[in-house]
Amino acid sequence: MKRFALPAFVRRSLLAAITTFLALAAPLPLIAQDDPLPSWNDGAAKTAILEFVAQTTTEGDANFVAPGERIATFDQDGTLWVEQPLYGQGLFALDRLAVLSPDHPEWKDTEPFKSVLTGDHAAMAKFTEKDWMEIVAVTHAGMSTADFEAIVAEWLPTSKNPTFGVPVTNLTYQPMHEVIDLLRANGFQTWIVTGGGQEFVRAYADGVYGVPTQQVIGSSIATKYQMVDGKPVLMRDPKLFFNDNDDGKAIGINLFIGKRPQISFGNTEGDAEMLAWTTAGDGLRLGFLVLHDDAEREVAYGPANGLPDTKVGTFSQALMDTARQNGWAVISMKDDWKDIFKGDVKKIE
Amino acid sequence: MKRFALPAFVRRSLLAAITTFLALAAPLPLIAQDDPLPSWNDGAAKTAILEFVAQTTTEGDANFVAPGERIATFDQDGTLWVEQPLYGQGLFALDRLAVLSPDHPEWKDTEPFKSVLTGDHAAMAKFTEKDWMEIVAVTHAGMSTADFEAIVAEWLPTSKNPTFGVPVTNLTYQPMHEVIDLLRANGFQTWIVTGGGQEFVRAYADGVYGVPTQQVIGSSIATKYQMVDGKPVLMRDPKLFFNDNDDGKAIGINLFIGKRPQISFGNTEGDAEMLAWTTAGDGLRLGFLVLHDDAEREVAYGPANGLPDTKVGTFSQALMDTARQNGWAVISMKDDWKDIFKGDVKKIE
Repeated sequence: MKRFALPAFVRRSLLAAITTFLALAAPLPLIAQDDPLPSWNDGAAKTAILEFVAQTTTEGDANFVAPGERIATFDQDGTLWVEQPLYGQGLFALDRLAVLSPDHPEWKDTEPFKSVLTGDHAAMAKFTEKDWMEIVAVTHAGMSTADFEAIVAEWLPTSKNPTFGVPVTNLTYQPMHEVIDLLRANGFQTWIVTGGGQEFVRAYADGVYGVPTQQVIGSSIATKYQMVDGKPVLMRDPKLFFNDNDDGKAIGINLFIGKRPQISFGNTEGDAEMLAWTTAGDGLRLGFLVLHDDAEREVAYGPANGLPDTKVGTFSQALMDTARQNGWAVISMKDDWKDIFKGDVKKIE
Repeated sequence: MKRFALPAFVRRSLLAAITTFLALAAPLPLIAQDDPLPSWNDGAAKTAILEFVAQTTTEGDANFVAPGERIATFDQDGTLWVEQPLYGQGLFALDRLAVLSPDHPEWKDTEPFKSVLTGDHAAMAKFTEKDWMEIVAVTHAGMSTADFEAIVAEWLPTSKNPTFGVPVTNLTYQPMHEVIDLLRANGFQTWIVTGGGQEFVRAYADGVYGVPTQQVIGSSIATKYQMVDGKPVLMRDPKLFFNDNDDGKAIGINLFIGKRPQISFGNTEGDAEMLAWTTAGDGLRLGFLVLHDDAEREVAYGPANGLPDTKVGTFSQALMDTARQNGWAVISMKDDWKDIFKGDVKKIE
């Protein structure tokens, strides 16, 4: 075989081609020497996630999942970010009432508005669902979808979680960001499946989690198509259209995705059906529940495992038993998470 | 600079690397010398589509659209495939009634079933919406979502369009496949927005159009979460949940996508609000209506432009006027499409 010498310009082109080729052929972020979940302590939960990714993405593995079928679903409040002492959307509704109150002098003498405006937390703690629906009706409806999105976007940087003293968007969990990034880098579509308002969460899901609007499933009120100044607008009606909680999460996943998730993360009883629906599928399907058991760094609540019962984001003992029966993994924030928040966040008490 | 000779095995590796590199770096389908729309005759519609793609994907262009915002929506019946003499889903419902009839002897004497089972086309032509809903209730509900999907998948290859004598999935329009492929190759998410049943269309949308289930928006009936033998199933209820027609198309796009499409294709009055919603947005937004004016190769119907009024897939003169007022382009199947069908299909009359 004849040996030949390459001219310098050919060598340079070849080397450039090889460099580019190697860059293109570089392994996905999950490589042996790098830990894709650095904020997780070693333990069963971390191992389960890493093994799940390895098995579902290795061709020839019995649990291999075709790229187009790779779906991961995440509850939001309490799973991806803080939900105490009140859901982010609850804080929005209360702030919004204060903004609107000058135009509604009658609220001073009318419940449930009166209790909110006077800061009567004892009365607010006893609000019924009907009370909350009245608040939602005046704060979340009666405007166009575009106006609502703008109102939420404007509010977010001004928002303040009373326990941590920072905007709600600063209170996302770093370990869950790492799970989202790891799954996405391995070809999973990452969806948010929230009991919260779909259009509320969509206003920040892309910026905060990199989840586009079309991958946010949530509760929604009805919208009405109307012509305003010769242009169509969608007006938000004070009427529940879809309740994305409990069985609604399984129904919503089927309605919006039409595929059964391979892996799901939640933290309350409202996520049980989502996890049941997920793990009832063939092959390797995992369900995870985040347990808020770190009183020091976040907020401890259950009432499972004897933790305080805060009434927001309930993780009951019954849910803990269901998790055990179904083989769902419970993530202990205290033991499994080295870091909790994405940014530098501390309680202000 | 020192010249060097490469050993043969290195040369082979290099050549393999270069070949792979060149394959990976191959240009996208839209290249100057190739026509990405070969089934389209030159004309205003073809030019508009090509210019739209060029402008929305050229960085620096006033109409450039960020990749994540590139959304295209397509009606299905009459826009992507044949809807005459009856929607594909109508053929399914009628075939399904015949399959189920042995278990329902009472249908022989009960309308609307009697007319269907005796093939009384005159009576069927006069069916009210309530009649059709009764047929849908017994053919589309009362089973799990998984069972329904399997029933549709099994029916599809046995289906037969009476005008063309082939399965419904053989009757897709080649020019529209080319538009879908062109848009997708240029970073657009291609969505189907159909008045037909969402779960019906999902059963074949990926195989037929490459559109995954999560990009199919359609009309839907309610589903109920139930435990059967210890496993959750979603049962289909004979109750309309969402009507994805007319204003429902704009509402559905907002509900499922949460982004305004950049370009939309339809063919009937039921698509008018989708096109209005699309083209009311900022920047370059296009709306297209397919006009079925080719009696020889397909079926001619309007009644716009004096075409026959078939009552299925109505394109009224009012819609034609609205299209003109709004600058929506009308695609003439006769003049704009060189080929119509993806496969070799001819009328059997």
